[in-house]
Amino acid sequence: MDTQQDGAVAVVGTGLIGQGWAIVFARAGLTVRLWDGDAQALSRAVDLIAAQLQALAAHGLVQDVPAIVARLQPCPTLEAALAGVDYVQESLPERVEIKREIHARLDAVAPPAAILASSTSSIPASAFTEDLPGRGRCVIAHPVNPPYLVPVVEICGAPWTEPEVLRRAAALMERVKQAPVIVRRELEGFVLNRLQGALLREAFRLYAQGYVDAEGLDRTIRDGLGLRWSFMGPFETIDLNAPEGLADYCARYGGMYESIAREQADSDPWPPALVARLHAERRAALPAAELAERRIWRDERLMRLAALKQGFAADDGKTS
Amino acid sequence: MDTQQDGAVAVVGTGLIGQGWAIVFARAGLTVRLWDGDAQALSRAVDLIAAQLQALAAHGLVQDVPAIVARLQPCPTLEAALAGVDYVQESLPERVEIKREIHARLDAVAPPAAILASSTSSIPASAFTEDLPGRGRCVIAHPVNPPYLVPVVEICGAPWTEPEVLRRAAALMERVKQAPVIVRRELEGFVLNRLQGALLREAFRLYAQGYVDAEGLDRTIRDGLGLRWSFMGPFETIDLNAPEGLADYCARYGGMYESIAREQADSDPWPPALVARLHAERRAALPAAELAERRIWRDERLMRLAALKQGFAADDGKTS
Repeated sequence: MDTQQDGAVAVVGTGLIGQGWAIVFARAGLTVRLWDGDAQALSRAVDLIAAQLQALAAHGLVQDVPAIVARLQPCPTLEAALAGVDYVQESLPERVEIKREIHARLDAVAPPAAILASSTSSIPASAFTEDLPGRGRCVIAHPVNPPYLVPVVEICGAPWTEPEVLRRAAALMERVKQAPVIVRRELEGFVLNRLQGALLREAFRLYAQGYVDAEGLDRTIRDGLGLRWSFMGPFETIDLNAPEGLADYCARYGGMYESIAREQADSDPWPPALVARLHAERRAALPAAELAERRIWRDERLMRLAALKQGFAADDGKTS
Repeated sequence: MDTQQDGAVAVVGTGLIGQGWAIVFARAGLTVRLWDGDAQALSRAVDLIAAQLQALAAHGLVQDVPAIVARLQPCPTLEAALAGVDYVQESLPERVEIKREIHARLDAVAPPAAILASSTSSIPASAFTEDLPGRGRCVIAHPVNPPYLVPVVEICGAPWTEPEVLRRAAALMERVKQAPVIVRRELEGFVLNRLQGALLREAFRLYAQGYVDAEGLDRTIRDGLGLRWSFMGPFETIDLNAPEGLADYCARYGGMYESIAREQADSDPWPPALVARLHAERRAALPAAELAERRIWRDERLMRLAALKQGFAADDGKTS
């Protein structure tokens, strides 16, 4: 594979999120330059990535692990990592002063045409890029962990981000088989965590008011709504759930949802006693000592689901 | 298989929902007595069920279709359908006067120990059972369509429903491989549609405010949150998303969700112009003429997902 033609990207910060990004880019054929301010973290990263790739290979999700690993290039300096790249994905800790400092360095060092993307889930790009000469090329590309199993990436600029940068970032994400979603203006929580927050708030409310226990609440999603939502979104779901489509659905059920919404309007903090009770119910279902093992269980299921969805996508390709 | 030992249930109303219930009960080995006030609907039902069973068999979700079909017994009268059954599942149209009339008949005719369950999604049991001598045995068992692919069943009584009836209904659902959720008090929309409503409301809001288009919104769920939610609920998801579990998650992110919630508090009806715009976007993605075909596509994916989740459940059985 021709590296020049395929381009090179830099992954800055090689913790869990950075490692995930490296897998995403390298499995798609890109050369990945890795850099971390912590030399030990950097030296561990390639081994950790290789171990994850072996697990993916066991599920048929990647083929040639050595070839993918060969595309990873740990770099001793930021300058070496950024030389000649088209795209930089920064995944440092979630503190605004850290983001401000690293983006000033990235903007000073990266090739002029390179996009500077941050993985931040909670800090708007405008909070750390305003004063940069290259602020027009700064954007957020917010992944879900692990990005090589959960493909959505929220692309959100500051007011001064050039539209072309959003477009190019989204095109790169499509190319590496992620699922970009352009968020058109800055917004706390972007789209994903706002949707999660809306659902969690009602979940806490129903639990607090004693309508359902934690296991029953989870079951309602995992054996109910979550099945459809794993391959259709909420709009397509309701579009198929009334004979004439979405408008028909809203005509039939909009009144019920409006009536329900009148009881869903509080925005109080979750009371500590409630959180403690719910936490205790979770710990009875899953002891704290088993949390780490359960996360492996989760990622193994995500891998099998990813393999199933690859089959879905292949079928759609055949019939379209 | 010994029908006496396995018991018999009655399915009253053989439209789409009733047919779905018949599959659930018959594939689990129960004798299913079918009755419908419309003799033509009744006579069509067995053929429609058999066709669905063939599709399930093609996905390895049922084995012996003729044996399952042999457990279906269309009955010419309600009396014949109810003789000797332990459980009645009523799935007539969603009108309170229809529910009131049929439940009066069911209560008069069914064996005294039989549970009378309604599939209604929108009418509380108290609205049509209050005056019945056997009101203590009346309960709602609300399925999702199609119930043989989406296992959740919400079990919700009226204030006078006997606790033992809730318990027995839930036990029957477990036995036929559904996923019962006991909703402890009457509640508009039960749990499932309240969770769906909370998420839809934020989805409509983000769309109305121009943050995201319909496809991007759907993608955020189907390539993001919906993946985890298809095998874990929202509480287990956040429990695994912070090092120390759910309480740790709430300590880290509760403030963000509280801040977001302050912007999620309206309960206005969805404006017709907004619904029309969203509907037009859906119709551009999927012409109205293809809605029916897309529903077949959806059910085919649900079947493959059901097969995958059967594999998950088998693995959990092995390791526990």
